[in-house]
Amino acid sequence: MGIVLGPNQYGKAETHVVRIYRDTPRHRIRDLVVSTTLAGDFDAAHVSGDQSAVLPTDSQKNTVFAYAKEHGVDAIEDFALRLARHFVADVLGVTAARIEVDEYEWERINVGGKGHDHAFSRSGREVRTTAVTVDADGRVDVESGLKDLTVLKSTGSEFQGFLRDRYTTLADTTDRILATSLVVRWRYLGPDTDWSVAYSQIRDVLLERFASTHSKALQHTLWEMGRGVLETRQDVAEIRLTAPNKHHFAVDLSPFGLDNPGEVFFAADRPYGLIEATVRRDDHSQSR
Amino acid sequence: MGIVLGPNQYGKAETHVVRIYRDTPRHRIRDLVVSTTLAGDFDAAHVSGDQSAVLPTDSQKNTVFAYAKEHGVDAIEDFALRLARHFVADVLGVTAARIEVDEYEWERINVGGKGHDHAFSRSGREVRTTAVTVDADGRVDVESGLKDLTVLKSTGSEFQGFLRDRYTTLADTTDRILATSLVVRWRYLGPDTDWSVAYSQIRDVLLERFASTHSKALQHTLWEMGRGVLETRQDVAEIRLTAPNKHHFAVDLSPFGLDNPGEVFFAADRPYGLIEATVRRDDHSQSR
Amino acid sequence: MGIVLGPNQYGKAETHVVRIYRDTPRHRIRDLVVSTTLAGDFDAAHVSGDQSAVLPTDSQKNTVFAYAKEHGVDAIEDFALRLARHFVADVLGVTAARIEVDEYEWERINVGGKGHDHAFSRSGREVRTTAVTVDADGRVDVESGLKDLTVLKSTGSEFQGFLRDRYTTLADTTDRILATSLVVRWRYLGPDTDWSVAYSQIRDVLLERFASTHSKALQHTLWEMGRGVLETRQDVAEIRLTAPNKHHFAVDLSPFGLDNPGEVFFAADRPYGLIEATVRRDDHSQSR
Amino acid sequence: MGIVLGPNQYGKAETHVVRIYRDTPRHRIRDLVVSTTLAGDFDAAHVSGDQSAVLPTDSQKNTVFAYAKEHGVDAIEDFALRLARHFVADVLGVTAARIEVDEYEWERINVGGKGHDHAFSRSGREVRTTAVTVDADGRVDVESGLKDLTVLKSTGSEFQGFLRDRYTTLADTTDRILATSLVVRWRYLGPDTDWSVAYSQIRDVLLERFASTHSKALQHTLWEMGRGVLETRQDVAEIRLTAPNKHHFAVDLSPFGLDNPGEVFFAADRPYGLIEATVRRDDHSQSR
Repeated sequence: MGIVLGPNQYGKAETHVVRIYRDTPRHRIRDLVVSTTLAGDFDAAHVSGDQSAVLPTDSQKNTVFAYAKEHGVDAIEDFALRLARHFVADVLGVTAARIEVDEYEWERINVGGKGHDHAFSRSGREVRTTAVTVDADGRVDVESGLKDLTVLKSTGSEFQGFLRDRYTTLADTTDRILATSLVVRWRYLGPDTDWSVAYSQIRDVLLERFASTHSKALQHTLWEMGRGVLETRQDVAEIRLTAPNKHHFAVDLSPFGLDNPGEVFFAADRPYGLIEATVRRDDHSQSR
Repeated sequence: MGIVLGPNQYGKAETHVVRIYRDTPRHRIRDLVVSTTLAGDFDAAHVSGDQSAVLPTDSQKNTVFAYAKEHGVDAIEDFALRLARHFVADVLGVTAARIEVDEYEWERINVGGKGHDHAFSRSGREVRTTAVTVDADGRVDVESGLKDLTVLKSTGSEFQGFLRDRYTTLADTTDRILATSLVVRWRYLGPDTDWSVAYSQIRDVLLERFASTHSKALQHTLWEMGRGVLETRQDVAEIRLTAPNKHHFAVDLSPFGLDNPGEVFFAADRPYGLIEATVRRDDHSQSR
Repeated sequence: MGIVLGPNQYGKAETHVVRIYRDTPRHRIRDLVVSTTLAGDFDAAHVSGDQSAVLPTDSQKNTVFAYAKEHGVDAIEDFALRLARHFVADVLGVTAARIEVDEYEWERINVGGKGHDHAFSRSGREVRTTAVTVDADGRVDVESGLKDLTVLKSTGSEFQGFLRDRYTTLADTTDRILATSLVVRWRYLGPDTDWSVAYSQIRDVLLERFASTHSKALQHTLWEMGRGVLETRQDVAEIRLTAPNKHHFAVDLSPFGLDNPGEVFFAADRPYGLIEATVRRDDHSQSR
Repeated sequence: MGIVLGPNQYGKAETHVVRIYRDTPRHRIRDLVVSTTLAGDFDAAHVSGDQSAVLPTDSQKNTVFAYAKEHGVDAIEDFALRLARHFVADVLGVTAARIEVDEYEWERINVGGKGHDHAFSRSGREVRTTAVTVDADGRVDVESGLKDLTVLKSTGSEFQGFLRDRYTTLADTTDRILATSLVVRWRYLGPDTDWSVAYSQIRDVLLERFASTHSKALQHTLWEMGRGVLETRQDVAEIRLTAPNKHHFAVDLSPFGLDNPGEVFFAADRPYGLIEATVRRDDHSQSR
């Protein structure tokens, strides 16, 4: 019974590249953190230490910078696809490349009622993401998403009728705060769409459904959000939502002679509920 | 030569309180992290372990929650002043109270073109802050500010003509990216003003001056920002700006046969320049 | 073509429990962060909002605390197994439970040359981990590991003869610093072993192999570390190593008239190489 | 009433330098994060944008690297003093330099019962610190310390007889967990001592006093720790201790039919008590 190398991959993580477009006095800015990962036959690199099939991670980093110049930065999905296809096509021995991109958004600083030509401030808190995989057989997988989108409902959320066991002390509630910081990833059916239009629309649907759903549990809300996205975008195959239940506990003010009808809450850090759900089309047998 | 207790203080740090106003179906939300610190004659608590003059930090936390209910949360400066005055007036032995508040901003989720009644998302990235000190002699100090305001100029920034020594390798530049994540604190002349109007106006001035100044150095930009605030708000005595110089290095693409006229940058994490400046009115002899 | 719920799970993340054993004056301390995750048929909880099959995450947290009292905390693997088996056996509808535990180590404070009875300080930096899964069919999976083990070699590390492409500028090196912060997970063949003996032995082997291997690349070192563990512990089926290459760049001191033969390094934060490898026995067809 | 520049300073923060000593096959490693700050007459740099008196922060970073080679790294206090004196003496216009150093400790990896020649692992969790200020008048201030030293007592800690007000609900306790993560800074009387011997001895005293003191409050423990240091080291003028009270709440297990006599605790993150105390010699009138 021998010992062998199993699944392995390597790459350069978190190359932070800022691309300025200055063709006109009205500059544009793109701010990305890019991670590249290559898979292939790298047995010799591990077992005998022979690096002849290994493209240095330093070269991968250089490629990210060079591509930002040569090809520019359009939708992060396109940028990632271009990089992934390059590594698979042009680097001998690479059987699959996975490119992950986080994008930070900037907005123009307002000066005298107008957005400034070349001064920006970081806007919003959430991060747009994509993870693209291309393999040597031509299979392409695009999973885009967002993270750190923090939302809260101050009513319209209940949690009752749940299973009780020996260790259950929680009381039913018909009115609580529901808050979460969403991490969402959706997989596109194919490698061609208008990524940025899709992103904007999906973000809107997620927010609207979160707001509009009278929530019977965070699970229930996630389902409605995921369903809403699949109903809206026919090019999305499945969507995965990961949602920490950021507990807001109503403070007992009765020792101080005060009532507290849902007005004063302690926002706790840990522990937190963690709810994960996938919503998908039923003619697909996606697995993970 | 004996050993004695020197300056000391204690309190409860980072009580995270969320206050919901639900008097009408259109809820409002306030989201604060509050730290309370008390100073006084606490020698016995230290030296002999006698706690009879020590109000527990747990009681201070309770007070924050109770005040959020009893008095509500208006401008964070007013909330902090009320707490500080309470501790100094009502707790025997307290000679000074310092209350620090960070406020996180939320915006209504847009549903069908209108802001939702009770669903919110965290907006922006910067945090509004205040630090209020009240002492037993009636002195009041209000220092408000903001942090995590990240801004960038893609041109209009130079750095040249600087002092050179044996260890200097940096070249003059007439066009670079200037980026920083601002921490700003300004001290008000008195304890009464329309805090939220002032905050909004000061934030606007800071952004406008950052954008409009043709920068000869981050020091130069900070000066212009600080000056702008003092010119705009007569109720501000001084302003302190702390600004990490978030270096964006133009990537050398020449090994790949590419030029890079200010288009592709590596955004570095560490080390970073750190520039700190105070701007104040000259008829005051503020010291730190 | 309908829309359906796909894979989903939920639980309570990061319950921080400290268990003191005080049966004798010589106390013992265990310091754990526990996350519980349940899978099962929770379709109704999502789709119709019916929570009758959902044991609250609050109850899961209570269970962690109660088990720390009722059953005590032995090896984290045993603690996790006991919790997982409970959820699968006792909670109707649960088809699988996954329990993750991080353990922080404490050592006795030295007073007068002896370890104190009830005063401790946090020791070391690395965290011992386990992730245990039990399903309703009786399958048990135990993956233990460690994280945040930071190691460095100041010589005995080369990187040369690698693949070069258009974007390669890196030079061959026969002597560099090799540094990483290891995340390692190994899967045990079965649910019974002396977990803590195994942990200690595996940790030793990892460190020794890191030190003793003349490294031709981080991949090469990881392979030797993984191989060493499988050779030493017959009860380990496979081991996965995730290792950021924490780059230490030799500083060019020639502008200052100084040479730098491997003495002064800049420790960079980002980007970093990220190397991931699995080493396993070849009569198994583990996949992930 | 004009607007003027107030106190200002600038420098390079967090230069991470690793110095390897490889004169013999038995290497030694020093791992520092260095921040340099210069004060002086930099009015023109701010007000008119004239940088002719400003030594770039980039040059300061270069100086840190060059000094690590030219002068080596001995005690961090000596390294910081040398840098500070250089900036004040050799850079025109600098009236004061402040150098802060954090040092991370490494230990040799054990191979076959012996520490390896050139393989190391990060040891411990706490960080040794210093902050040295030198001004143009020859004044020298050395404040050394440590941070992230996490300690806990599982008994021997009470908190009772405290002041009670309307908002007090806390009960007296004669037996609780006392835990904190210490940040300590002590100021030396002069610029010459055996810094590393002093550090080691002070660290030992802090730990021993924490362990041995039957604590009536964290204030009481801090006083005893500080007093112990001043009694032990005549070269220390004052010591400041900042200690978050890391609350460990005994879990109420009675709903599950279990008692909990100080055995199972929930370790909370926020809010936390924050206790700050200075202990000093009474023939000094240090103030801060």
